[in-house]
Amino acid sequence: MSGPIRVQAQPLQEFVQALFAQAGLSADAAASVARALVWADLRGIDTHGISRIGSYMTLLDKGVMKAQPTWRVLHDTPAVQVFDADASAGAPAMDHAVQQAALKARALGLGLVMVRGTTHTGALGCFTQALARQGMVGVALAASIPLMAYHGAKAAGVSTAPLSIAVPGPDDEPMILDMASGAISMGQLRAAKQSNTPLAEGVALDAQGEATTDAQQASIVLPMAGPKGSGLALMFELLCSLVVGNPIIADYFSDKPAGRRHRQNAWVLAVDVARFGDLAHYQQEVARTVAAIAGLPSREPQGVRMPGERGRLSLQRRLREGIPVPPAVARELADLPRPGGLALPWAG
Amino acid sequence: MSGPIRVQAQPLQEFVQALFAQAGLSADAAASVARALVWADLRGIDTHGISRIGSYMTLLDKGVMKAQPTWRVLHDTPAVQVFDADASAGAPAMDHAVQQAALKARALGLGLVMVRGTTHTGALGCFTQALARQGMVGVALAASIPLMAYHGAKAAGVSTAPLSIAVPGPDDEPMILDMASGAISMGQLRAAKQSNTPLAEGVALDAQGEATTDAQQASIVLPMAGPKGSGLALMFELLCSLVVGNPIIADYFSDKPAGRRHRQNAWVLAVDVARFGDLAHYQQEVARTVAAIAGLPSREPQGVRMPGERGRLSLQRRLREGIPVPPAVARELADLPRPGGLALPWAG
Repeated sequence: MSGPIRVQAQPLQEFVQALFAQAGLSADAAASVARALVWADLRGIDTHGISRIGSYMTLLDKGVMKAQPTWRVLHDTPAVQVFDADASAGAPAMDHAVQQAALKARALGLGLVMVRGTTHTGALGCFTQALARQGMVGVALAASIPLMAYHGAKAAGVSTAPLSIAVPGPDDEPMILDMASGAISMGQLRAAKQSNTPLAEGVALDAQGEATTDAQQASIVLPMAGPKGSGLALMFELLCSLVVGNPIIADYFSDKPAGRRHRQNAWVLAVDVARFGDLAHYQQEVARTVAAIAGLPSREPQGVRMPGERGRLSLQRRLREGIPVPPAVARELADLPRPGGLALPWAG
Repeated sequence: MSGPIRVQAQPLQEFVQALFAQAGLSADAAASVARALVWADLRGIDTHGISRIGSYMTLLDKGVMKAQPTWRVLHDTPAVQVFDADASAGAPAMDHAVQQAALKARALGLGLVMVRGTTHTGALGCFTQALARQGMVGVALAASIPLMAYHGAKAAGVSTAPLSIAVPGPDDEPMILDMASGAISMGQLRAAKQSNTPLAEGVALDAQGEATTDAQQASIVLPMAGPKGSGLALMFELLCSLVVGNPIIADYFSDKPAGRRHRQNAWVLAVDVARFGDLAHYQQEVARTVAAIAGLPSREPQGVRMPGERGRLSLQRRLREGIPVPPAVARELADLPRPGGLALPWAG
């Protein structure tokens, strides 16, 4: 095999949906998972795409992720819903949160859904974009198990705390910021290990908690901007996890048997732009703001890039050329049980 | 003069309040401004304390800040209020926003106030802390005129976009994160210029947009974590300014005569913790989470520090020893017109 296989998004998404339906998810939930994974792959966020399928299947096998969760609404006010996702896959729970937050925002201008107890939330931009496409400001954040050093500590103490903000943009194309609070992502660390590329200073620690630029020795990601990155990550835990009574960090460091089980909590917030002004005018003003910044003299040959721009460029290219499936991911997918004789979406 | 004068918080706050009352602010508004400035000085955020008084007075003289603004509620739903602060001083407008957000959150679990058109918002932690003291999660963010380079650009394109998150903590002491999205603050840059200390790599550009570590040459702050810091700053503009129809960045770069006038917009969001669980239990869980992280092995001699910890240490010291007033600030205050014969709060 000389390089990655390339698959068109549509057949890939149908394949992924069929895989998760066969693994016991409802048709709707399987469609949510497939849509979110392929959304990330199209935008070049390969760490949150089909490379996750193997680990999702392992979580399903172990019962850590439930194929048939029982969601329960714990609190519901005209402005806020708290629901327990019962170890659901992240995407269907987040799709539900988007829908409910939008309904509340349509009525009152503002809606918040607190999602309690998913497994892996997925790329947040997928969900804030869905809000922005409905004319909403969308804000999403999530809390997870410790993967990143707290500033000044020698060990992982907080999650890499993702945050996404999306707003309606010109030509109905949302502006999306999708970031995590680490100095580098776990995916970038993995890639540096694979290619044996030295890391920049100040982005990782080794297993003993000492700073390192050796990708092979690096095991813990440092927070972006020191206390700011880890401070954000801690606050996301206090917001997303503790308000809904599902502590992740405190239990992780306790002797509770389930303390280290993979689980996440999230916030999805929506503000209805049209409630406070004209939506088309808002989109024009976004365009005017972006044009003002993009017009500044640039230090980079490609010019000044806006949030989500790299993702859109990837989207255009991958819609045209197909999504690259690295050999390791292709092998992993080929080896998964496919009881109904489900065909791989590539010649193999 | 061998060093800074030290003044106790109480007489200093009374003096500042009297100054702003004499400058034409209502008693309530003057009290808000004085409380917010001394709050920042007590916590060591000297850039947002009494060192601002001179520039506030200049803004008042020019009419850019209005002593007697006419606030107007532009939108009011059970969950959201948008109000136009009419070039008010920031603190009274933010105090109003805190009160309204808390009222809405008490009723529905969630409240958002969008503050349109203040001048200088002030240290956001002062206002999120006020929410946390009422049992709320408080989130505040603000948009301002360009002071920071957009990632990849050679010129200032976005504000340093402050963000604060506070939650109720153990012993009724809120946990407060108060950060800006620059690699360093404008205050740190000024301090480096004064002491002629070289800057770290990657925190500032000179007036030509070239990277520099020479504090004297540095004129533009770079964003923290590159595209993340400037992406956040841009999104805050799209959230705080454009939703309420008060564009800052787009107008700054336009040929509108008022485009460069000093103005800010802000969001204040509150979530009522007790609506979704037991507040005392929440505070215990915050303590348990903080203890887990603070207990990790540390890379720093002082141990692992939590958000707001440095501020609390400063508060304790300055309540005891008084607030240091640098000679330049003392001179500036002594030179201000004090029509009623108002005495300085120090022997001078």
